[in-house]
Amino acid sequence: MDEREGMGRRAIARCDVLGAPPYSLAVDRLDRPFLTSAHAAAGAIIGGWMTEAGLTTRIDPIGNLIGRLGPKDAPALIIGSHIDSVRDAGRYDGPLGVMIGVECAQALHRRGRPLPFALEVVAFGDEEGSRFPVSMMGSRGMTAPLPLEQLELTDAEGISVAEALTAFGLDPVRVNDAVRGPGEVLAYVEPHIEQGPALEAAGLALGVVTAIVGQARLRVRFKGVAGHAGATPMPLRHDALAAAAEAVLAVERVCAAGPVDLVGTVGRLLTPIAAYNVILGEAEIGVDVRAAADSTRDAAAAAIRREIEALAERRGVAVEIEVAQALPACPCDAHLVDLMEAAVASVGVSPLRLVSGAGHDAMVLARIAPVAMLFIRCAGGISHNPAEHASAADADLACRAMLAFIDRLAEEHA
Amino acid sequence: MDEREGMGRRAIARCDVLGAPPYSLAVDRLDRPFLTSAHAAAGAIIGGWMTEAGLTTRIDPIGNLIGRLGPKDAPALIIGSHIDSVRDAGRYDGPLGVMIGVECAQALHRRGRPLPFALEVVAFGDEEGSRFPVSMMGSRGMTAPLPLEQLELTDAEGISVAEALTAFGLDPVRVNDAVRGPGEVLAYVEPHIEQGPALEAAGLALGVVTAIVGQARLRVRFKGVAGHAGATPMPLRHDALAAAAEAVLAVERVCAAGPVDLVGTVGRLLTPIAAYNVILGEAEIGVDVRAAADSTRDAAAAAIRREIEALAERRGVAVEIEVAQALPACPCDAHLVDLMEAAVASVGVSPLRLVSGAGHDAMVLARIAPVAMLFIRCAGGISHNPAEHASAADADLACRAMLAFIDRLAEEHA
Repeated sequence: MDEREGMGRRAIARCDVLGAPPYSLAVDRLDRPFLTSAHAAAGAIIGGWMTEAGLTTRIDPIGNLIGRLGPKDAPALIIGSHIDSVRDAGRYDGPLGVMIGVECAQALHRRGRPLPFALEVVAFGDEEGSRFPVSMMGSRGMTAPLPLEQLELTDAEGISVAEALTAFGLDPVRVNDAVRGPGEVLAYVEPHIEQGPALEAAGLALGVVTAIVGQARLRVRFKGVAGHAGATPMPLRHDALAAAAEAVLAVERVCAAGPVDLVGTVGRLLTPIAAYNVILGEAEIGVDVRAAADSTRDAAAAAIRREIEALAERRGVAVEIEVAQALPACPCDAHLVDLMEAAVASVGVSPLRLVSGAGHDAMVLARIAPVAMLFIRCAGGISHNPAEHASAADADLACRAMLAFIDRLAEEHA
Repeated sequence: MDEREGMGRRAIARCDVLGAPPYSLAVDRLDRPFLTSAHAAAGAIIGGWMTEAGLTTRIDPIGNLIGRLGPKDAPALIIGSHIDSVRDAGRYDGPLGVMIGVECAQALHRRGRPLPFALEVVAFGDEEGSRFPVSMMGSRGMTAPLPLEQLELTDAEGISVAEALTAFGLDPVRVNDAVRGPGEVLAYVEPHIEQGPALEAAGLALGVVTAIVGQARLRVRFKGVAGHAGATPMPLRHDALAAAAEAVLAVERVCAAGPVDLVGTVGRLLTPIAAYNVILGEAEIGVDVRAAADSTRDAAAAAIRREIEALAERRGVAVEIEVAQALPACPCDAHLVDLMEAAVASVGVSPLRLVSGAGHDAMVLARIAPVAMLFIRCAGGISHNPAEHASAADADLACRAMLAFIDRLAEEHA
């Protein structure tokens, strides 16, 4: 087997290994939240693959796994992505980027010719935010001190980030030591499955990302009056779940009426209890709004707030709306985008430029370094779903394009 | 303290004792589901109070606590209600009726004059149905064999009714031994808080129930397509939660447009996960519909089904609608209603006749015996809520009216 032809196959096979216990909390689906035993197990095996690839590994104080090759004090090109997952995830969203990084490191290590910069492969511990009510703690913790109150945020079982860090073997007091110093990061490049249908529709294995959409998350809590389902006439009710249901439809209506890149989703609806025979007094929803332009996103979020406040008032239900997170849209570095385009063309793929509708660690790394992203075609555009699929052939093209990109960057820094 | 004036005070005080651990699973709210440790603890202390009142106690094979006074083979007048609770319950919904029964037994026992029938006080283990997806297993198990498949129904943790019975010390194979033989039950009378505002509005402590509304429960499961919240344009989505939200509002709209006694509620909305960044592929709701006439209820349930099927088709979301339970409306026994009316008048309360909007064990007992119900005023009509309140003075009037009722029934059977 030719070493290079095998890169994509091995990258995919390793993602498949990571799709089951002990790398998933669940037996029947992939569930690998931040700072859990599944995360620790994944870190251990990926750390082994990194070592095999010639990288020196460490876990930073916010739980990111970092493998490094090259001079100690040189600025690093980071190839990174995340290894946490949503609750019923596909196997490639995140891990494939890390595995492609490991393949590149291994190829460069075998080649033996030193680069004019260090190479790091980073497996971020939290991008999805599926355990705690904020996301991208891994990359945020690497780029700036985390707001201290975020260490107090709790998961569904009431465990705080600080407690989870301690259980993971880390010291929450040292968490900000994860922040990288000025000049440490030369550039950040993230290979990732597209999670949308554009590459498949164009018949292309790879795409070059020009920008990542901005996203806002609203936490909306309704407080009505709990009561007996039989004894309260309809006009006298202040049903918190009915208010939440109307809000879900308001999000959908506002975003469907906007430009095609505007999307709004409620994937989180919580009630304190669930029983046939009660009128619910409390309900909470999580609203996620994204658009390529921050102005579009902000206008939609404002319209959603107005609709929710109006429906709550009409229903006699109290409402609290809190911005749980706001990440601005992020353009990729124009020069790195050009380099990536040339690298993609060099492996025989016509380079399609596109916008990412999903958020990525790259948007956070952009605060401290120029960033680029390489998209890999995924079947049917399906993601955050067990049916997620990327092919070994496409992953192989991605590895070769990444190596071509690194060579081009090395030439510039020679 | 006059023994009779103290009856209401003690009945209320005992309900208050039952409002906290170990008689509740939760510290900060009252939560006493069927066949749990809280149910067992409540059974133990109530059994003690029954014994003190002169009753001989046993737990029947479906978990009902039964205290009996009088001849072994005589048909029994049963005074009963339930001791399970919803998840964030008030203290009087159910237990107050049982405590009033215990007070009546104690007064009759002290008086020493034998009744021409046996007296039983029954504390049903499940009326609310807050643990398993069906309700009234206690009274249903006493009146007819339970459908065997109901023993396989599971709670939110996946524990089946059969497993829960075993854990409670009962033998699921013997469950149908709880069924009472023909002629064993002379009559069933249930004292219960009103759970509605009518008695308070009329300035009356007690009311006489003429009928209990019928109820239907639909379990509605939506199956759409799960996906990434960022990468799927709005028009391409098949969002199961958005479909469920639209169904919640359809239930509300259909029932608000009907007669005043028609009510429809969704107090149960379940999703397999809850995360900001996913489009949900699955969602389930529980619909509860009630009306004084079965024809009204059935017409509303049919309209709700039609609306849900139409919205699911429009959204490209699959839907399964299952009738989880259907209980017909239940008239009380006309003669017992007359007796109760006279008994209420005899303690100085103008007897108001009313319909119960909530379901009660009485509607199940009606299958094997004539039934009556005595309603007790509750503050603000609030129930299924920690703010639920009934006064000691009203409970005392209820005890005295029940004793007067028993005396009248005894005269007829002398």
